[in-house]
Amino acid sequence: MAKGEETRGVILHQGVETAYKVGLGGLTIGELARATGLSKSGLFAHFRSKESLQLQVLARAREEFTDTVLRPAVRAPRGEKRVRALFENWLHSGVYRTAGVCLYVKALNEFEEQTGAVRDQILQGHRDLYDSIAQIFRTGISEGQFKADADPMQFAYDLNGVLLAAYNWVRIIGPDDAEARARRSFEALLDAARA
Amino acid sequence: MAKGEETRGVILHQGVETAYKVGLGGLTIGELARATGLSKSGLFAHFRSKESLQLQVLARAREEFTDTVLRPAVRAPRGEKRVRALFENWLHSGVYRTAGVCLYVKALNEFEEQTGAVRDQILQGHRDLYDSIAQIFRTGISEGQFKADADPMQFAYDLNGVLLAAYNWVRIIGPDDAEARARRSFEALLDAARA
Repeated sequence: MAKGEETRGVILHQGVETAYKVGLGGLTIGELARATGLSKSGLFAHFRSKESLQLQVLARAREEFTDTVLRPAVRAPRGEKRVRALFENWLHSGVYRTAGVCLYVKALNEFEEQTGAVRDQILQGHRDLYDSIAQIFRTGISEGQFKADADPMQFAYDLNGVLLAAYNWVRIIGPDDAEARARRSFEALLDAARA
Repeated sequence: MAKGEETRGVILHQGVETAYKVGLGGLTIGELARATGLSKSGLFAHFRSKESLQLQVLARAREEFTDTVLRPAVRAPRGEKRVRALFENWLHSGVYRTAGVCLYVKALNEFEEQTGAVRDQILQGHRDLYDSIAQIFRTGISEGQFKADADPMQFAYDLNGVLLAAYNWVRIIGPDDAEARARRSFEALLDAARA
């Protein structure tokens, strides 16, 4: 059982990496077999359907984002330091680890016209991220560091914009400049938020 | 000739609308035949190849963006009024006309892993847009309305972020709130830019 779980984790991680390249829509059991070197029949026994594979890969991508970006941020002190850790972790992940690709943004584009469980999970992931950002920002209001009447969801909107702009810039112009520009935008957001 | 050009324009406009739905990668001559009701052989005579069709549809999408967003903005007085017109035209186009989809962003996701003329044109379109925004912003520096040491390309980065955030929000949460939030972010950018 423990070994099965471990294998599953390795396969799903490879699924995330593959989906970054071919898109979630292109992530079939056949494609994953090519990427992992495992048999299609073995993978089919694990996942049963393309949709089930896509849903589990989305869940895994979300866990990886939580582990590298959100969870370490929440270990920082409440308020500005925590917001700053969130930004730095996210920027580093987006600019260097995934080279300007966000699987949830990419998948949102792919599944725009399709209703169903995959699209629902993509939308839910985005909504939960907005909520997490707002919640982290709110600790800065409670601590008296940010303006009492600041709108945490507006901050979530703005910070998402800074990162989307960085992801875009990485792919159009390059990584180094993206990082410096994102940092300038972020400092301006913080300046406007401080009490 | 005039009639041929007109027909071409109608077909390419339909190509843009179709690419919004199926993606530029899904825009084949067969798909366009279905969308227009024209024969595949007639369309093939016009476009010769899928790549040529994709390049012409990208060029047409860019012209439509220029006609609805950039050109009317440049008719506004130089400086803040022109920047404001750019923002309002772009926001209206993104939130209502295309419901949060930007063909160039969508295509950037699709053609990420492919080298070639289509990807080159997508990247060039993005770069030219950054330049156009920076140029419009620069008129506000010349007119003494914005800080003399403001960085026009940073403004282009930030404004792009505000719009990317709006496009994202439209699709996750909905159009009305997207507009109000984008406007708040934009006003904060202007406040920071003013001399």
